[in-house]
Amino acid sequence: MRVLGVDPGLTRCGVGVVEGVAGRPLTMVGVGVVRTPADADLGHRLVAVEQGIEQWLDEHRPQYVAVERVFSQHNVRTVMGTAQASAVAILCASRRGIPVALHTPSEVKAAVTGSGRADKAQVGAMVTRLLRLAAPPKPADAADALALAICHIWRAPAQNRLQRAVALHSSRAPRTPHAPKGRTP
Amino acid sequence: MRVLGVDPGLTRCGVGVVEGVAGRPLTMVGVGVVRTPADADLGHRLVAVEQGIEQWLDEHRPQYVAVERVFSQHNVRTVMGTAQASAVAILCASRRGIPVALHTPSEVKAAVTGSGRADKAQVGAMVTRLLRLAAPPKPADAADALALAICHIWRAPAQNRLQRAVALHSSRAPRTPHAPKGRTP
Repeated sequence: MRVLGVDPGLTRCGVGVVEGVAGRPLTMVGVGVVRTPADADLGHRLVAVEQGIEQWLDEHRPQYVAVERVFSQHNVRTVMGTAQASAVAILCASRRGIPVALHTPSEVKAAVTGSGRADKAQVGAMVTRLLRLAAPPKPADAADALALAICHIWRAPAQNRLQRAVALHSSRAPRTPHAPKGRTP
Repeated sequence: MRVLGVDPGLTRCGVGVVEGVAGRPLTMVGVGVVRTPADADLGHRLVAVEQGIEQWLDEHRPQYVAVERVFSQHNVRTVMGTAQASAVAILCASRRGIPVALHTPSEVKAAVTGSGRADKAQVGAMVTRLLRLAAPPKPADAADALALAICHIWRAPAQNRLQRAVALHSSRAPRTPHAPKGRTP
């Protein structure tokens, strides 16, 4: 599966595309940052984020988009911008019918380093190792976007089983005992 | 001037269009609510908000869009949804080149009632009176959207003067003593 990870932000929105399946070596397809000028007004910044995300979707055609789930426990001003940039990324993917998954920062850290409290350097080091890169991607937002994509690939089998179960339950269809049990990719 | 006011929200996004200029009786052009199902996933909800706002822009062709400025002091879950819905509204307007203004809830309340701490009923009553309506618009989100539009019409002359001054300053052009001094609408 091919996943676009998005570490949302107005000033720097990290984007990274990873291809692979859980249990096999992963491949980095692309990594970068969508930037918008801090002195531009909010509307122009959101339009720039939209254009940037659209370019990444056009170029790399991901099957899934993984976006960092935003919490408001931190700096209020930053969090608002982050929530608004994430809304644009989620909107762009959903408009195309691409499934969007949200992962918390600690889920992402735990997925790639084994600890939900790992620091930026540790995440960068593991992303470099897991994707067999020559050096950690810079800036940290770009590395975080790749970590999100990796996290999604590794967590996806469980999430897909859960989504399938929810869909089965809400359709109220009688369960078929002969339904295929294989993991969907 | 014709202004679309947007009281952002994922479950109910209030929208109201008001036409007029400061110092003259105002006219309500339209009012309504864009709703999205609470059980739908975030991506589908943001797409539905986008479609709703686009319809209002298509139908009413406002010259300005006034959106409530979101603060994160309240309920964290609600605030994230509000910030994300507001991002979509701001994006839709900015994509079309329509200027977007943000007004805080207390600015809006103060504009229409004289007090920044007025309650919903008071805002609804003043919106009804100022727009000469038969009854207060329901739900409160719709009345709030109209109040935002009214607030923008009344505050706009001052804001436009400020924006013009900032633009002059940042272009570093020598000031022309003969520049027209009239208020831009």
